Amino acid sequence: MRNYMMAGLAVGALSVATLAFADGHNEKQLASAAKARQAHMQLYAFHLGTLGAMAKEEAPYDAEAAQTAADGLVAIAGLPQGGYWLPGSDNESIEKTRALPAIWADGSEVGTKGKEFYEAVLAMQSAAGTDLDALKAAMGPLGESCGACHKDYRQSDN
Amino acid sequence: MRNYMMAGLAVGALSVATLAFADGHNEKQLASAAKARQAHMQLYAFHLGTLGAMAKEEAPYDAEAAQTAADGLVAIAGLPQGGYWLPGSDNESIEKTRALPAIWADGSEVGTKGKEFYEAVLAMQSAAGTDLDALKAAMGPLGESCGACHKDYRQSDN
Repeated sequence: MRNYMMAGLAVGALSVATLAFADGHNEKQLASAAKARQAHMQLYAFHLGTLGAMAKEEAPYDAEAAQTAADGLVAIAGLPQGGYWLPGSDNESIEKTRALPAIWADGSEVGTKGKEFYEAVLAMQSAAGTDLDALKAAMGPLGESCGACHKDYRQSDN
Repeated sequence: MRNYMMAGLAVGALSVATLAFADGHNEKQLASAAKARQAHMQLYAFHLGTLGAMAKEEAPYDAEAAQTAADGLVAIAGLPQGGYWLPGSDNESIEKTRALPAIWADGSEVGTKGKEFYEAVLAMQSAAGTDLDALKAAMGPLGESCGACHKDYRQSDN
């Protein structure tokens, strides 16, 4: 329960942080924020890798490992993260980030997309330990949710 | 409460994982595990940077930011992490990690050190939002706890 509340706060914190941190940060703080975001995404990737390998049948389905991975995603999504989504840490302002300025622009839907991602993660948490079919069914919306945010808010590889 | 329980499980999971994953993993899994550990440490570093800057009076004391950072440390410490402390992912077995084989060796005290770290993190959570003196007092044991584990279980820079 506490994790869920924290996650709600964390998702909501994206817009709050925009106000709270709009007073400017130094280069070291901005670089540190970008590194923290990447670490956060890397932790998602670790657990998604476990779930994805099972979904693609590259690894045998293991209910316990799948549940742990899904629990991990929920817990990571619940981490306080407002502190590392700092205005001024976009890819036009600093090096070594692919975060687009659109994240912080007027009309940004990043908060909504964050909530959708969290819902997809919760659905995976409910499904992952059930069976392979349930895991596969939850993987599609989860992957789409990742992709939807990356499409609009992360610099393309191309 | 749930976070605390999860953290207990996570700390305990170090030894459980040693048994559970001793059946061997492929190179991709081992590399992925090392990357996840580094991301996990990077997230600690982000929040420790916030607290450390205040402790060294390089940044003004901000009770709310300090509390958020300390809450962040507790939440990260509570993440499921047994999955990325895989035997065979030490620095003698794979590239791009400084994790020493001693972590997984007989008589390893890594579980005990993990519990000590978690206690230091909880103490920081109690102290950080109180005032600067309390934060400073909690910083010493926390830094020592980080260092104690790195000294024995992480490859030295030298």
